[in-house]
Amino acid sequence: MQKLLRTLEFAHMTVGRFVKSGDSVIDATAGNGNDTLFLARLVGEKGRVFAFDVQEKAIINTKNLLQQNGLISRAQLIKDGHEHIEKYIGEEVSAVMFNLGYLPGGDHSIVTRPNHTIGGVEASLNLLSSEGVITLVVYTGHPGEQEEWNYLEKYVKNLNKKKYRVLLYKFLNTKESPFLVAVEKL
Amino acid sequence: MQKLLRTLEFAHMTVGRFVKSGDSVIDATAGNGNDTLFLARLVGEKGRVFAFDVQEKAIINTKNLLQQNGLISRAQLIKDGHEHIEKYIGEEVSAVMFNLGYLPGGDHSIVTRPNHTIGGVEASLNLLSSEGVITLVVYTGHPGEQEEWNYLEKYVKNLNKKKYRVLLYKFLNTKESPFLVAVEKL
Repeated sequence: MQKLLRTLEFAHMTVGRFVKSGDSVIDATAGNGNDTLFLARLVGEKGRVFAFDVQEKAIINTKNLLQQNGLISRAQLIKDGHEHIEKYIGEEVSAVMFNLGYLPGGDHSIVTRPNHTIGGVEASLNLLSSEGVITLVVYTGHPGEQEEWNYLEKYVKNLNKKKYRVLLYKFLNTKESPFLVAVEKL
Repeated sequence: MQKLLRTLEFAHMTVGRFVKSGDSVIDATAGNGNDTLFLARLVGEKGRVFAFDVQEKAIINTKNLLQQNGLISRAQLIKDGHEHIEKYIGEEVSAVMFNLGYLPGGDHSIVTRPNHTIGGVEASLNLLSSEGVITLVVYTGHPGEQEEWNYLEKYVKNLNKKKYRVLLYKFLNTKESPFLVAVEKL
């Protein structure tokens, strides 16, 4: 049995430390809906999950998954890019989850674009409450993904350490595993 | 309150997932004895902690700390470098903890040397049980420390992924915090 938490396990464990029942949170890249479902469970009956994706297929998959689990009422699904989240949300959120790279099982030619990603992260930092967290699960195995991460790395490394803590969680001897960046707002 | 675990907290949490009561473990760099004490508590009455340090002062500090806590009987303190641990230990261990850089409060001119460190890590991998872990807390703020890490990084990145998982836990927007490398033996 592997005891060092896998990247996705660590991402969920981390978000679980920041989100309380009744919170509003964001899944910035709904994809197949797994994180949206995780968040919908975490925020409880009175909480709210805003889930974004530019792909119609992702919105449909996420809607189906939430309906199958009887949790669709906790979520609002929005077909738009996460750089526009501030158009839809006027309240503070305690967590924002990103998967950067691709929709597993989806069209690998549609990858998130560097400018949009940084726009999404900036907008998320604006909406984030003090003692809130952003998680970025980063895949770098497909074209464009390494470039996206290079932009993003520069951006997060320069975040003011008096306002944010920026953690990297990464397996060093394999390229198959995604890695995690978590940004805690102080 | 900060919710992302600090590097030393994460190191202790990680070791706690691998070590069972009754295990034998190693503190490869006893320093002020904090990790030796942590390990002595973790292994329980029937466990055993082997603590190494090249500095006399570190051995004395560690001995004092364990005596103050009534746990000296669980530990064997050895004034030698961790590249020689196989001379002293013939049994399997479930965890080996390293602090690389300097003895806090000690003589900063005495830093661990790259060859000795890799020797210590190699010897530790030999003694480590399957499902065991090595943790390396790395300070890179003093002369020679960055060089030491450069050697070590190359070494751990090349560990066979079928036999080991190598995790990096690092805060990206500050240079003051040490970072952690954890090696899990599969």
